[in-house]
Amino acid sequence: MKKNLKNELTGIARQAKTACASLALLSSELKNAVLADMAFALLSKKSLILKANRQDISAAKAKTKAFIDRLSLNETRIKQMADSLLEIAKLKDPVGEVMRAWNTCAGLSIQKVRVPIGVTAIIYESRPNVTADCIGLCFKSGNSVILRGGSEALNSNLAIFNVLKQVLQKHNLPEGAIELIATTDRKAVDYLLKLNDYIDVVIPRGGEELIKKVVKSSTIPVIKHYKGICHVYVDEEADLNMAENICFNAKCQRPGVCNAMESMLVHQGVAARFLPGLLKKFKDADVEIRGCAFTQKIAKWVKPATEKDYRTEYLDLILSVKVVPDLEAAIAHINEYGSHHSDSIVTDDNLAAGKFLKQVDSACVYLNASTRFTDGNQFGMGAEIGISTDKLHARGPMALEELTTYKYLVYGCGQLRR
Amino acid sequence: MKKNLKNELTGIARQAKTACASLALLSSELKNAVLADMAFALLSKKSLILKANRQDISAAKAKTKAFIDRLSLNETRIKQMADSLLEIAKLKDPVGEVMRAWNTCAGLSIQKVRVPIGVTAIIYESRPNVTADCIGLCFKSGNSVILRGGSEALNSNLAIFNVLKQVLQKHNLPEGAIELIATTDRKAVDYLLKLNDYIDVVIPRGGEELIKKVVKSSTIPVIKHYKGICHVYVDEEADLNMAENICFNAKCQRPGVCNAMESMLVHQGVAARFLPGLLKKFKDADVEIRGCAFTQKIAKWVKPATEKDYRTEYLDLILSVKVVPDLEAAIAHINEYGSHHSDSIVTDDNLAAGKFLKQVDSACVYLNASTRFTDGNQFGMGAEIGISTDKLHARGPMALEELTTYKYLVYGCGQLRR
Repeated sequence: MKKNLKNELTGIARQAKTACASLALLSSELKNAVLADMAFALLSKKSLILKANRQDISAAKAKTKAFIDRLSLNETRIKQMADSLLEIAKLKDPVGEVMRAWNTCAGLSIQKVRVPIGVTAIIYESRPNVTADCIGLCFKSGNSVILRGGSEALNSNLAIFNVLKQVLQKHNLPEGAIELIATTDRKAVDYLLKLNDYIDVVIPRGGEELIKKVVKSSTIPVIKHYKGICHVYVDEEADLNMAENICFNAKCQRPGVCNAMESMLVHQGVAARFLPGLLKKFKDADVEIRGCAFTQKIAKWVKPATEKDYRTEYLDLILSVKVVPDLEAAIAHINEYGSHHSDSIVTDDNLAAGKFLKQVDSACVYLNASTRFTDGNQFGMGAEIGISTDKLHARGPMALEELTTYKYLVYGCGQLRR
Repeated sequence: MKKNLKNELTGIARQAKTACASLALLSSELKNAVLADMAFALLSKKSLILKANRQDISAAKAKTKAFIDRLSLNETRIKQMADSLLEIAKLKDPVGEVMRAWNTCAGLSIQKVRVPIGVTAIIYESRPNVTADCIGLCFKSGNSVILRGGSEALNSNLAIFNVLKQVLQKHNLPEGAIELIATTDRKAVDYLLKLNDYIDVVIPRGGEELIKKVVKSSTIPVIKHYKGICHVYVDEEADLNMAENICFNAKCQRPGVCNAMESMLVHQGVAARFLPGLLKKFKDADVEIRGCAFTQKIAKWVKPATEKDYRTEYLDLILSVKVVPDLEAAIAHINEYGSHHSDSIVTDDNLAAGKFLKQVDSACVYLNASTRFTDGNQFGMGAEIGISTDKLHARGPMALEELTTYKYLVYGCGQLRR
């Protein structure tokens, strides 16, 4: 990598670090006013953004339809970005919250207080709306943000970024509050991920390959938003009508997202009664089924499922199905093959439910509901930066609160340690 | 590295992963009974442990006195280890705590529940008591633990480990609940730090070099317990008598630990009145002072402080001193040169105090108290696995609660996403 680029990246990171000290002190009122201005700016400069987006799209012509769809902006999508920023403005500011307060034997008065993390780097792909969302969430939680989007969306990302940056300038807010790495040099990310002195956390959002690469080269803590191999397990004591609705909803309501069901497990005691009807319903909805031997016996058109199928996030109208001997086998399968994201049991048996909820090692474990509810807004936490599949710091929906850390304020009157 | 060793390490990690599923389900009563048995076992097998310790000590003869002291065990220290385990048994079990519970618009009932992290790997140096402390804390919080101590303490660590492992076996608890890497092959750590599939978190405890090495090679999340470059800032409006006591306590009460003061900052408005008396007191206590030009003018015997001094954790009777023009300069110095561990301001000025507490970016920020209180027990949190200088997951004293994560339990009655 050229020395110039190294210097540039270090300069960007240092500037972000400097900015976060003053961002941490901004009032909620000011932050909300800035967010509202940002929303307004996106709308009033939309032709500029759409023009940049058209450049990206014409460069991407050879790609798939789904790819182009993810990349494309239009008036509605820009309106959605603006609305997101207005929603973030309405959310409660987590910064400054006293999480706990107590006195110690030595007479010290301690407060555990929420503070911003500092500098957040976000490495992401495709969807240009992520640019505005991440800026909004990081700004509201008092963090500087360094963005590095995919090269395929560079023009769109830059256009959105510049519009929002101008709003910050208008309010005399520090330069480094939001930064975007505009170079397409792939080595830039590797270098960025070593800047421990300036960057506090890295959040990769994208495919498995991107996330693995970030984890491998980063010396900065990473919060992974990995894949969602979500299961619904239909227990022997399930209300089969409810189970059918939940499974269909979890698979079909929006198959391209991380909280959609990718694998369905059915207790052998109900499989013969439950599967024929639902499999037909799936077939009518164009869902391809890849099943175990038992499932294949029930419907001849079912393809055989391989080991790999049970470990695959299809993000598509494909479903793996397995008939299991009992609850324990279902739990073991989920913990072994799943991605610790969201898993559901359908049952009327309280004991089975309790065991499943306790033993399934996932961020969100459901009883009698669709996995599709794993979402910051659905959980009542507000807009999210993603769904963490990590166990440290943030697990599950990562919203404003999860973009903060804490510090201890210790009030004394001359206390000495004996 | 030999293929055998790789297989052995993977086997150990896999066994730990298997064990943590059942550890997560143990009742507090059983865990406390096992901890009490462990304490008893340490005492009844003390001659065996002391014998192993003598082997380590005779092999370490060439080392410094401080090194031998850290390595040495005796009856009192074994008693302390046993007492620690009994104390851990008395602490509240964090596992299963409902941190928050609420209902969503869709009628889902959500509980955010504390659960063990899973498999913890701890890489540490010297003091063999760390072996027992870490086993106790991880076991109580429902985590499996993989220990890798320094080769200089291998015999002592193994002896302690074997005594505690036998207690687990007596209670028919899973093999993998506690593991110790006994090989002295240095490549073992590198390999261990890549076993993401089995290990959830790595906690390095030791010198800067060890921690940097772990951060560099680990693909598993690391919680760093880094150095403590702690400051006391004596403000213009300080009660100078209180300030003198606090500074002396923070430096001298136990200079070899991470929460001792390494650098003292004094407002220029009080420096001429404050410094002469305290510098003499430090001199009488054999504290070497390395100061700025102003400090050197006040006492001729003060050595000049270099840039490096202000970034050094002495862990010894050495102190760097700097006279600063104002509060802002003190805050800027601490954020630039400190290690974000523990910093204190002495002042009677509420405005200055507020600014310092808010703007100093450290885990623990004090008003009118010694930095020496940063400690799990002193904070009322109980025994700690260390003081985290990281911002993610755990910051400051890392006790039982910080050895847990959470999951969301979502109770529905057939909810579907619209």
